Amino acid sequence: MAAKKFSVIGGDAAGMSAASRAKRLDPDIDVEVFEMGNWVSYAACGIPYFVEGKVDRLDQLQVVTPGEFEKKRDIKINLWHKVEGIDPKAGEIVVTDLEGGGEKKVSYDSLLIATGASAIVPPGIDVDYAGIFPVRGLDEAKSLDAYIKDGHCRRAVLIGAGYIGLEMAEALSERGLSVTVLEMADRVMPAAEEEISAIIAEKLYSRGVKVINGAAADGVERSGKKLIVSADGDSYEGDVVVVGIGVRPNSGLAEEAGLKLGVKKAIHVDRWQKTDADGIYSGGDCAEAYHLIKEQNDYIPLALTANRQGRVVGANIAGKEELFPGMLGSAVTKLFDLEIGRTGIGMKEAKDLGLDAVKVKVDSFSRAHYYPGGKKIRMALIVEKGSGRLLGAQMAGEDGVAHRINHFATALGAGLSLEQIMDLDLAYAPPFSPVWDPVLIGARVARKKV
Amino acid sequence: MAAKKFSVIGGDAAGMSAASRAKRLDPDIDVEVFEMGNWVSYAACGIPYFVEGKVDRLDQLQVVTPGEFEKKRDIKINLWHKVEGIDPKAGEIVVTDLEGGGEKKVSYDSLLIATGASAIVPPGIDVDYAGIFPVRGLDEAKSLDAYIKDGHCRRAVLIGAGYIGLEMAEALSERGLSVTVLEMADRVMPAAEEEISAIIAEKLYSRGVKVINGAAADGVERSGKKLIVSADGDSYEGDVVVVGIGVRPNSGLAEEAGLKLGVKKAIHVDRWQKTDADGIYSGGDCAEAYHLIKEQNDYIPLALTANRQGRVVGANIAGKEELFPGMLGSAVTKLFDLEIGRTGIGMKEAKDLGLDAVKVKVDSFSRAHYYPGGKKIRMALIVEKGSGRLLGAQMAGEDGVAHRINHFATALGAGLSLEQIMDLDLAYAPPFSPVWDPVLIGARVARKKV
Repeated sequence: MAAKKFSVIGGDAAGMSAASRAKRLDPDIDVEVFEMGNWVSYAACGIPYFVEGKVDRLDQLQVVTPGEFEKKRDIKINLWHKVEGIDPKAGEIVVTDLEGGGEKKVSYDSLLIATGASAIVPPGIDVDYAGIFPVRGLDEAKSLDAYIKDGHCRRAVLIGAGYIGLEMAEALSERGLSVTVLEMADRVMPAAEEEISAIIAEKLYSRGVKVINGAAADGVERSGKKLIVSADGDSYEGDVVVVGIGVRPNSGLAEEAGLKLGVKKAIHVDRWQKTDADGIYSGGDCAEAYHLIKEQNDYIPLALTANRQGRVVGANIAGKEELFPGMLGSAVTKLFDLEIGRTGIGMKEAKDLGLDAVKVKVDSFSRAHYYPGGKKIRMALIVEKGSGRLLGAQMAGEDGVAHRINHFATALGAGLSLEQIMDLDLAYAPPFSPVWDPVLIGARVARKKV
Repeated sequence: MAAKKFSVIGGDAAGMSAASRAKRLDPDIDVEVFEMGNWVSYAACGIPYFVEGKVDRLDQLQVVTPGEFEKKRDIKINLWHKVEGIDPKAGEIVVTDLEGGGEKKVSYDSLLIATGASAIVPPGIDVDYAGIFPVRGLDEAKSLDAYIKDGHCRRAVLIGAGYIGLEMAEALSERGLSVTVLEMADRVMPAAEEEISAIIAEKLYSRGVKVINGAAADGVERSGKKLIVSADGDSYEGDVVVVGIGVRPNSGLAEEAGLKLGVKKAIHVDRWQKTDADGIYSGGDCAEAYHLIKEQNDYIPLALTANRQGRVVGANIAGKEELFPGMLGSAVTKLFDLEIGRTGIGMKEAKDLGLDAVKVKVDSFSRAHYYPGGKKIRMALIVEKGSGRLLGAQMAGEDGVAHRINHFATALGAGLSLEQIMDLDLAYAPPFSPVWDPVLIGARVARKKV
């Protein structure tokens, strides 16, 4: 039997995880990766910390180099190669060599579409305009860094106050810029519960970051060295403009090939990460992912999900059947000294699913009351009425939130009831928690309310 | 019906939790607490931090004052009242008023024995000798603090390198004393796995704490202002001697009353926290506790277990039947900047239970590799061969251990398999973890070994 040919479109988390795992499980598979840029296997999540100056060099964000993939893992890497089209019937892709020029057809036995996502840019904003930067790949991060440095930028206008926006707000602010954040919604981090947004807003205020809510940026004009961002008739001045609204799936290639799209136009996949076309898989930020609480596919692009989906694809390619176990949308971020975490679904999502849910707000304390350094932890728990099933948890605080949210992620993954969470034997010591950990307190308070 | 009379012997975690919960659930119950000391509801776990100077005043360690219990919760508190005997048949206790003098009989409908534990003191060491201090109650902590201050102590000999010993090693060292630790076993923290002990030993060494392993202290002599501790023929000099070996259950009163004792002479209880005598309950550091992995009673005195057992007793007294859900021996401690955590059982315990277990050592990293401040995390996972069931987890590291151990505690409480742990959707951000959290990596590595 001739070696199986596995082609991968996109050389980041999902693509390289799949490539590596397939090759490890079955070294006879020919694995070839087409990456339209210059980087593979890089940590896009590290971009804000490069801009902030906490990470010195961009190449530190690269986990494995193309050379290592080729030499150590026997995976062929084609940088600067753009896949222009997929022919599912013929089992071929059309590839353009962006450097060398020329187009060629490449046949595959199995294909993974791992084209990632692109920064959402509001209409009227042109990121090709000098001084306007999306938060996207490493090259854009490098350009932004250089622009701030060379242009001696002192004021930034940041569009968007979700995860990416907040991380960039910290980065630009810590770098010494005065930052104004324009957020379309009526509060920051609109995907979080109001109780959590409130804590985030306080932190931004206390660190001198100006937030304009209900401001949908709709244009940028240059006036000398300055950029003027307009939003609903008002205008905001800065030396640099950063667009950090969020991302949308790069599913155009799949759509053109006739593949089914799903939630938010992400590529539709089943639990094996298969698309509806024979031999074609998808995973990572361009694809749907099965949500454990929703019990259906959702689109929440996150790094761990991309890596996990990639591994599942790799296993299936190598004939070791694996299902994607599902995700919870677990996420955490740092905003200065504030830690913000979530897992599971929020109130709006519960309502959209037709669930009868209640939200319980609990404020507790991160350490024993007498131990120095303890801080308030704000918690919002989403619980199904009647059953008392935990649907989601969100937390914010300046101490001990980032990992604690994962007690809830573990509990949700295990399907624990609130009673079972209340009864967990969590390790305690005064420097780290009160005797009754906030997680235990939260579960107990919530149990009384449902 | 006359009000039920609930008497509580011992006014700390288990006793006051039971008293408060019984009263809250049924205000008609007469609740009376007999405490032989001066403090109720205090955090003994905070003692090392008082000695270290991180907690200014001892009364900060008191969670609720006697006055608050009496006024707000209608619980009668008798300080300086020692219970001398229990007559289970008559339903009476004999109480001595240590201040006012005199002895009286008090009848009860239900009784809770929550007499706590006492510091283990090796034979040949007399803690009534000036300059020798056990780590026990708040008054002893105050005396130790004063002795160090007034005696201008510069060198301490510490007996014992378990949890209490290590916390005191930090406390005395941070206070400026030169510390020598004598540990009977051949390594520090002998209850932990060797791989964890090794990390702890490194930290003690790097902070200038001298450790003598295999040294069983067997006598102390005074020589002028100095105390000379002898151990197996060698001698160690200090200005103050602290005994921090561990504790043993205060079960003498129960034993004299004919109650059944169990593991390590702790008072035997069932899952309702009932002793074998009618109407008599026990909980906290004097009692056994049901261990979820061992599926039998064990003796691991810990603050959360005491609080949980007290709540169970309170519920049962008030007629709301409750079972103690079980514990895992989850514990965490801080040694300078090192965090040390454990949950579930170790290799020796697995062997004692007749389980065919394997230990997997995993070293991973606490943050994204490029994010500053990341540290090595050492992990030892105890896994049952064949079934692949996780039996226990231990971790040590300078970043992100204290709360991470509770992912495992949650997973153990939920009975998750290693595969299920590998598949958890844990929240990730570069400042807090790598994409694949150490917990996920640990589970994956362990899965390959069984």
